[in-house]
Amino acid sequence: MNLPRLLLRYRALITEGLAKTLHGESSLHAILRYHVGLEDSQGKPIEGVGKLLRPSLVLFVVEELCGDVEKALPGALSIELTHNFSLIHDDIEDRDLMRRGRPTVWSLYGVEQGINAGDLMQAMAMSQALIAGRAEAKALSEATAEMIEGQGLDLEFEEEIGISHYLEMVDKKTGALIRCAFRLGALLAGASPILEQTLMAVGQEFGRAFQIRDDLLGIWGDGVQTGKPQGSDIRQKKKTLPITVALARAVGEEYTILHQIYGKEEVTDTDVGRVIAVLEKLGAKDVGEKMVTDHLSHANEKLRNVPLSARGKEEMNELIDYLARRER
Amino acid sequence: MNLPRLLLRYRALITEGLAKTLHGESSLHAILRYHVGLEDSQGKPIEGVGKLLRPSLVLFVVEELCGDVEKALPGALSIELTHNFSLIHDDIEDRDLMRRGRPTVWSLYGVEQGINAGDLMQAMAMSQALIAGRAEAKALSEATAEMIEGQGLDLEFEEEIGISHYLEMVDKKTGALIRCAFRLGALLAGASPILEQTLMAVGQEFGRAFQIRDDLLGIWGDGVQTGKPQGSDIRQKKKTLPITVALARAVGEEYTILHQIYGKEEVTDTDVGRVIAVLEKLGAKDVGEKMVTDHLSHANEKLRNVPLSARGKEEMNELIDYLARRER
Repeated sequence: MNLPRLLLRYRALITEGLAKTLHGESSLHAILRYHVGLEDSQGKPIEGVGKLLRPSLVLFVVEELCGDVEKALPGALSIELTHNFSLIHDDIEDRDLMRRGRPTVWSLYGVEQGINAGDLMQAMAMSQALIAGRAEAKALSEATAEMIEGQGLDLEFEEEIGISHYLEMVDKKTGALIRCAFRLGALLAGASPILEQTLMAVGQEFGRAFQIRDDLLGIWGDGVQTGKPQGSDIRQKKKTLPITVALARAVGEEYTILHQIYGKEEVTDTDVGRVIAVLEKLGAKDVGEKMVTDHLSHANEKLRNVPLSARGKEEMNELIDYLARRER
Repeated sequence: MNLPRLLLRYRALITEGLAKTLHGESSLHAILRYHVGLEDSQGKPIEGVGKLLRPSLVLFVVEELCGDVEKALPGALSIELTHNFSLIHDDIEDRDLMRRGRPTVWSLYGVEQGINAGDLMQAMAMSQALIAGRAEAKALSEATAEMIEGQGLDLEFEEEIGISHYLEMVDKKTGALIRCAFRLGALLAGASPILEQTLMAVGQEFGRAFQIRDDLLGIWGDGVQTGKPQGSDIRQKKKTLPITVALARAVGEEYTILHQIYGKEEVTDTDVGRVIAVLEKLGAKDVGEKMVTDHLSHANEKLRNVPLSARGKEEMNELIDYLARRER
């Protein structure tokens, strides 16, 4: 599945901006270039940057609201750097070995330099946001704090969290930054506070759809496509949407299976298979897929109040379609 | 040894500011209050905050340059929060179990929440700096990046780094934030760029004196006073000033002893004793003590170009005396 035009339009600009920002002689800078996919572990240039969803959304909103795209670049970079700093630290916390099909930073350079690399990237994100402006930096630092609180909630939650708790966590952990992308776009284009709020509401729906799709891919996705081992979210007992749904619906034997396996120290391949069978039997996959579509429709409805160009509407529809069906 | 007046003057104001800033219901907020010493691990209020050197310096400079101390508080807090975020992450990286006589955050709450707690504190530091202003936030984010790069260098350096490399690392790892404290004071008081530069040069000397004194305490300090097990820096094979000096001076048997022990996986109590004996024989302790005094004299000379009040001069002298002789 190819990237939609909205994610291709600004890709060269953002990639070049990332390369300039992460330029530096120290080994921490080299680690950051490795992490975002500008270089391999030997420092050789590669084309490995991710989807660039968040910074592309910033620049798309700026362009649609007739702002200056080039001038908005530092703001867009600030959010991509923040996203990437959180990935470096998340990978340490989850002990994930693979990210985008390549070894994670900590697994190559150790936990210590992994922590430092993430910290440096958070500081660099803020430097970029400060080039954009004080309001932009304030928006980013609020979103960063909210994202980290969501990450903290994720670790803290007990097994049976219920869907409303799940969404509360997702609105922070994933939603905060995607809302902030729309918000930065609005701020950088000088949009009205009402339009800023509308765009943030769109971001909230995008965040939910994005995370739930991620959760589905973490269980049913093709490892080659996602860049992570198949079923790894179950092996790591992550509190994803399908599990949340299944735990709310399970009775009798299925309830016992889920609880037993999620209570184990080590989850085996057989366990993963049994959990997936229960999830499917209880319709958790279907619920997830419906939620993705629903949240994207809500986003679409809210977008009616945003003055998009004809081209902008078309590209946004294409993006929404991509987000609903992406395999990576 | 009592705290000097300069560190007592603003203590209540800063402590109250920290409590307000770190107020919050989430468990991450509770972890942050525990870390800075506002609460014990049960959430009971304690009087455990550290020396508050950096924020006190900010407010001292502001007051001496006739700025508004109350209005400068967020800037002062931003630097204390940054310092504390780095301590939370440093303790994970060094696997330190004790800090200020209490268990470290990661040892109580796990590495995962330790990483999150530090990340949240970095974001909160930036929020405070942004209340102060864009220039202040820019100064802080630059200093933060430099501090982290210094931390990265520390991990990366080979055994024999030499004194000039050691100082380069210290100027980043420790100096960046102390320079920034003086700089924020200057910015918040609206000082001239020349005075800002002078104050930062004072901060550089303070940073070196502070770190070298810390290194001496990490080897010869009383564990009850420092809040860390005695000799722990040697047990952890840290690249401190005394070791740097000794490695540069050692020949024959002493060279072999140092290299052997610093090359071992596990350093025993006997090893620690043997290293300390070599350090003392080679005069590394004396060199360290002389360097502390020298850098503080340089600071004092540079302070002659700063228009301090009579009281300010007196309190600054008292602080310098304290920094030369502090036991914790």
